[in-house]
Amino acid sequence: MAKIPAPLRLDPDRLLPAAEAVRPVARRLYEAVRDLPIISPHGHVDPRMLRDDEPFADPAALLVQPDHYVTRILHAHGVPLDRLGVGEGPLPEQRAREVWRLLCTNWAAFRGTPVQYWLATELHDIFGVAERPDTADPDALYDQVAQRLREDAYRPRALLRRFGIRFLATTDDPADGLEAHAALAADPDVSTRIVPTFRPDRYLEPAGTGWADAVKRLGAVADADTGHYDGFVAALEARRRYFIEHGAVSTDHGHVDAVAAPLERADAGRIYARALAGEATPAEATAFRRHMILEMARMSCDDGLVMTLHPGVYRNHHPASLAAFGPDTGHDIPVAAEFTRALQPLLARYGTHPNLHLVLFTVDPSVYAREIAPLAGFYPAVYAGAPWWFLDNPAAIRGFQEAVTEIAGFARLSGFIDDTRAFCSIPARHDMSRRLDAGFLAGLVAEHRLDEDEALDTLTALVTTQPASVFKL
Amino acid sequence: MAKIPAPLRLDPDRLLPAAEAVRPVARRLYEAVRDLPIISPHGHVDPRMLRDDEPFADPAALLVQPDHYVTRILHAHGVPLDRLGVGEGPLPEQRAREVWRLLCTNWAAFRGTPVQYWLATELHDIFGVAERPDTADPDALYDQVAQRLREDAYRPRALLRRFGIRFLATTDDPADGLEAHAALAADPDVSTRIVPTFRPDRYLEPAGTGWADAVKRLGAVADADTGHYDGFVAALEARRRYFIEHGAVSTDHGHVDAVAAPLERADAGRIYARALAGEATPAEATAFRRHMILEMARMSCDDGLVMTLHPGVYRNHHPASLAAFGPDTGHDIPVAAEFTRALQPLLARYGTHPNLHLVLFTVDPSVYAREIAPLAGFYPAVYAGAPWWFLDNPAAIRGFQEAVTEIAGFARLSGFIDDTRAFCSIPARHDMSRRLDAGFLAGLVAEHRLDEDEALDTLTALVTTQPASVFKL
Amino acid sequence: MAKIPAPLRLDPDRLLPAAEAVRPVARRLYEAVRDLPIISPHGHVDPRMLRDDEPFADPAALLVQPDHYVTRILHAHGVPLDRLGVGEGPLPEQRAREVWRLLCTNWAAFRGTPVQYWLATELHDIFGVAERPDTADPDALYDQVAQRLREDAYRPRALLRRFGIRFLATTDDPADGLEAHAALAADPDVSTRIVPTFRPDRYLEPAGTGWADAVKRLGAVADADTGHYDGFVAALEARRRYFIEHGAVSTDHGHVDAVAAPLERADAGRIYARALAGEATPAEATAFRRHMILEMARMSCDDGLVMTLHPGVYRNHHPASLAAFGPDTGHDIPVAAEFTRALQPLLARYGTHPNLHLVLFTVDPSVYAREIAPLAGFYPAVYAGAPWWFLDNPAAIRGFQEAVTEIAGFARLSGFIDDTRAFCSIPARHDMSRRLDAGFLAGLVAEHRLDEDEALDTLTALVTTQPASVFKL
Repeated sequence: MAKIPAPLRLDPDRLLPAAEAVRPVARRLYEAVRDLPIISPHGHVDPRMLRDDEPFADPAALLVQPDHYVTRILHAHGVPLDRLGVGEGPLPEQRAREVWRLLCTNWAAFRGTPVQYWLATELHDIFGVAERPDTADPDALYDQVAQRLREDAYRPRALLRRFGIRFLATTDDPADGLEAHAALAADPDVSTRIVPTFRPDRYLEPAGTGWADAVKRLGAVADADTGHYDGFVAALEARRRYFIEHGAVSTDHGHVDAVAAPLERADAGRIYARALAGEATPAEATAFRRHMILEMARMSCDDGLVMTLHPGVYRNHHPASLAAFGPDTGHDIPVAAEFTRALQPLLARYGTHPNLHLVLFTVDPSVYAREIAPLAGFYPAVYAGAPWWFLDNPAAIRGFQEAVTEIAGFARLSGFIDDTRAFCSIPARHDMSRRLDAGFLAGLVAEHRLDEDEALDTLTALVTTQPASVFKL
Repeated sequence: MAKIPAPLRLDPDRLLPAAEAVRPVARRLYEAVRDLPIISPHGHVDPRMLRDDEPFADPAALLVQPDHYVTRILHAHGVPLDRLGVGEGPLPEQRAREVWRLLCTNWAAFRGTPVQYWLATELHDIFGVAERPDTADPDALYDQVAQRLREDAYRPRALLRRFGIRFLATTDDPADGLEAHAALAADPDVSTRIVPTFRPDRYLEPAGTGWADAVKRLGAVADADTGHYDGFVAALEARRRYFIEHGAVSTDHGHVDAVAAPLERADAGRIYARALAGEATPAEATAFRRHMILEMARMSCDDGLVMTLHPGVYRNHHPASLAAFGPDTGHDIPVAAEFTRALQPLLARYGTHPNLHLVLFTVDPSVYAREIAPLAGFYPAVYAGAPWWFLDNPAAIRGFQEAVTEIAGFARLSGFIDDTRAFCSIPARHDMSRRLDAGFLAGLVAEHRLDEDEALDTLTALVTTQPASVFKL
Repeated sequence: MAKIPAPLRLDPDRLLPAAEAVRPVARRLYEAVRDLPIISPHGHVDPRMLRDDEPFADPAALLVQPDHYVTRILHAHGVPLDRLGVGEGPLPEQRAREVWRLLCTNWAAFRGTPVQYWLATELHDIFGVAERPDTADPDALYDQVAQRLREDAYRPRALLRRFGIRFLATTDDPADGLEAHAALAADPDVSTRIVPTFRPDRYLEPAGTGWADAVKRLGAVADADTGHYDGFVAALEARRRYFIEHGAVSTDHGHVDAVAAPLERADAGRIYARALAGEATPAEATAFRRHMILEMARMSCDDGLVMTLHPGVYRNHHPASLAAFGPDTGHDIPVAAEFTRALQPLLARYGTHPNLHLVLFTVDPSVYAREIAPLAGFYPAVYAGAPWWFLDNPAAIRGFQEAVTEIAGFARLSGFIDDTRAFCSIPARHDMSRRLDAGFLAGLVAEHRLDEDEALDTLTALVTTQPASVFKL
């Protein structure tokens, strides 16, 4: 790297609108919420990491290997996933350094993406990095971050405190014993409320690999006989209760479509039996899953767990990468989503039930104005989930703000969801959201559609009371 | 309400672009059209209200109960529709006050929506309200508006004059005798041209509730034998003539899809007979409706009525609300729209017919650039309808302006359509449209894509000659 | 025309963002790339025009008749295509003048469209026109342009040099002998690299008119027996080699959908035989085409030709215009596109093949964020094609920039493609793209998401190295 090092700058006004009539308002609004605690009601942090509080292994293991946001872009630029240690744990130092070098030398590949924005924020704010990775010596940068990671102040719990995270939900298998959550809840050293989320996808998809075995194990942990449909339903209900006892506030559902369609109990039982016997047709398996989504809503009305839905992803699009590196390695690709017809049976039954909170996420932005906002603008049970995954970037967030709030208002939004497995990106992501919300509201003030006190009240609610209310914290 | 009252302000620059290079141009353009008369070629004002010219009952009956834009948001915030008097006429004063209080105390729920913008404009400009409803004493506000409503200057015709409405189209059942229209046309006190619009949806849907009876009544008023298909067609043609005699300029069609597909006359006749006998299958009923859309276009080529089409809405999504409160109570939800394939048979036949004006509306904004603009940019019969219903907000209107005009130019737009049943919102809605058009055109001037004289000419046309030409006024 | 002539102005800042914080940055960025040579890797210029280098006939034949961008808008405004000389060669002078007058008197119809922007730029920059066509005397304007066209400096090769076009790809039939390309390559007077593009659509659609004859001719020029499937594949492979020998770098594919789905070789052979015999069903013809798309990708892996795909257009929507004027006359209308499922079989096989470059174009902008960016953000073979056809306007380009780069970064973009058959519009189109890219990047700088050196590097790459790399120049 013979380049002249360029400084890594984080301008205080970053992401705020550039127009002179808007920026000062945005700045004032943002300042008011900048330092408020973080509420993270949906994400993928591993609770064992926080329970064990071991130092992070190295920069690559922390910031590159497990983050498919980062590795997919590198892969698109011709870096094979095995060179990035995807699907592996911490690597020997030489390989970890090589992964880190690939990140730095491909830094330009991330230009214009929020991934670069988050990484830059993390490097600067958490690790004190002062040079742009593409112009710095990658090994010196590696050393700098690695040294920090050996300090106590950079262990998971210390960062959790430093990040100001007040509430953190993880995502968990219904059969999980939740021992890590129990340990964290019992530990007086941990003041963040860390709770599990009930994610039953695999149990609701009889066509999935290993379904019968999974259901059997579920029965075992739930002390229910999953050899028949009623026992299966009882097992799910029991595990939901167990999750609630461990602090859970929500369930999470990510199937290829959002359809909820009832089956007669007898038909559900018959398909369940055929599925256990390995005889269910694909159509039957789909019908069963759609029926179970309705059942999940029914259970939410009973036990009060918030239901989050995020359909419309073709999982594991590249079979060779799935085979070599496993799922969640960057090749889940969105497809067109549909909510209006899909959810009609569910909302006809439960759309005004006082116990149901149904948060709708999408990776197809064309449904924001067309379906999600109109649904959230009528049904008290429905909330518009914040832009998620591929849409968690500034442009898409601005599109969401316009598409949804103009139709449903601000008070029908879920508040920000970081949805991340990259622990260190949590503050950067929430800060980005606060900046963008401040900018959007400032635009409404500048166009004389809101008074500034209304904008401030709205922004504060989006960061504090609204996620608390939507997720029943 | 111990709050300090905040003033209700309407800034003269509201909705104009905030950028300094753009706003002065926008201001000049807007000023030039601000006070031009209103042309409203599509909406839902009840002509009997203008014929009878009775004072409005009270603030709730005027501004809340009948407006599903308002009640759906309140419902989403947990206010049951029966507390809002939806589907009822004027309420006893105590209940009307309670409805009004719900509007004021939930004022924040409307932040960011055009509904708040329109309500604020109405309260300020028409009723002289000077305090933001969420900070005012709701009962004092109620009293202020109620007192105005008792004055002659606030009766329907006085407002009609004050609003500067030159042309007003209502929406009417083909079997309607149009007595109110006749009375208004004959009344020298009414200078606004008030005309009916032929809305035959229910007669074209053999699967709809009460279709056979409706068709029978239609035959009676048309003096045609609707016991067979030819008589049914003749009845529709006769009623169109009757509407034309009463000033109608257009027909309006809102089915779930936009498909126009011909049937052989014999097949149409056979399905019609089966439908009358209650024996038509759902597929036959759909085929019949699609055939009749083509017939409507054929009749428009014959009699010159402009044809407006707005497909893509799942009507009455929440059955319990339909049962309790009737249709048009806020739970019609959009679905994906398709025009290119759907309209091909119609446009292959009539797309260059000099008598056909076909205005396409959508609640699915993804078709603006993809389908509507390309169609309006080739077929002389096709016009891009202004953003409508869920899309009548500033962000969606800006999206429409960009998506359609860049492909089809300004001269293929319908001009603004308010589509409202909220009489008092008409001036606010047209004013919003003029501001947004001025802002968009000013942006083109600021980017040196149009000279200011071209922008002014375009804006003036959009407000005056263009709707007059598209709707053949 | 009694109007006062308005000057035709091209402001140096046109299309750059108007906000004061952004424009100076945009100006600096744009200045740096303004005069760089043009690389045009996909378009529809006729190579014979450049080989023969005859003077252009007249203003109408050059700027109106062959350009369906222009004629479709005029047609939408009620000008019949025959009055515009669509599908005819150069017209007698009186008719050519009449066509020209129709353009000038309908100039306002093009307001807000890029077509007006390009025409204005061409008239001003190439022909020195100083008056806006709607305010000028059309005949005087005609005379001015016509006189220029008689000068040597306005013959095709002189303009090619003046435009600074370094690389120009045409679009060609696989059976074309490429004599014009050979002559141009051998001519020392021509320094632009002019290459053919392999466009096999018609040979891959057994349901198309004249398919069997076309395939037979293809066999003849390829010296292969296309009487059976293997010979057909061999003929295509041979013609690809022939194109490569004549400089081709890419193939181009425009079918109604993007589906690539393999057939067993035996099934492909069987359908091919049935198709030759005129016995293939529509479903078989579709299956065969989808299989052949996969075969094209396979051949690209073998021979290295870049593969460009642009599905989703309903061709020849208006049969009467097709019958009278032929294809490509302005009534191809987009339909919804789908890539995720459609391309899965292709990408599962070849998505990481080092030889495959697959550039995805769309006329359905809703797939940019949903499908194209996620695909280009994982698969090294996939590039996001620049906005194309109906979407080649400033608003759509800005939408593309935001939708794609936020997800996939800048380095997964194809670089600009002009796709034009309007030779004189090439510099205006590339200049527009450079201005819009500069503006977008300046916005990122103004929001402190990129340093200005990164923006400059990105912009320069988009204009130079990136198309060269994506198209393997």
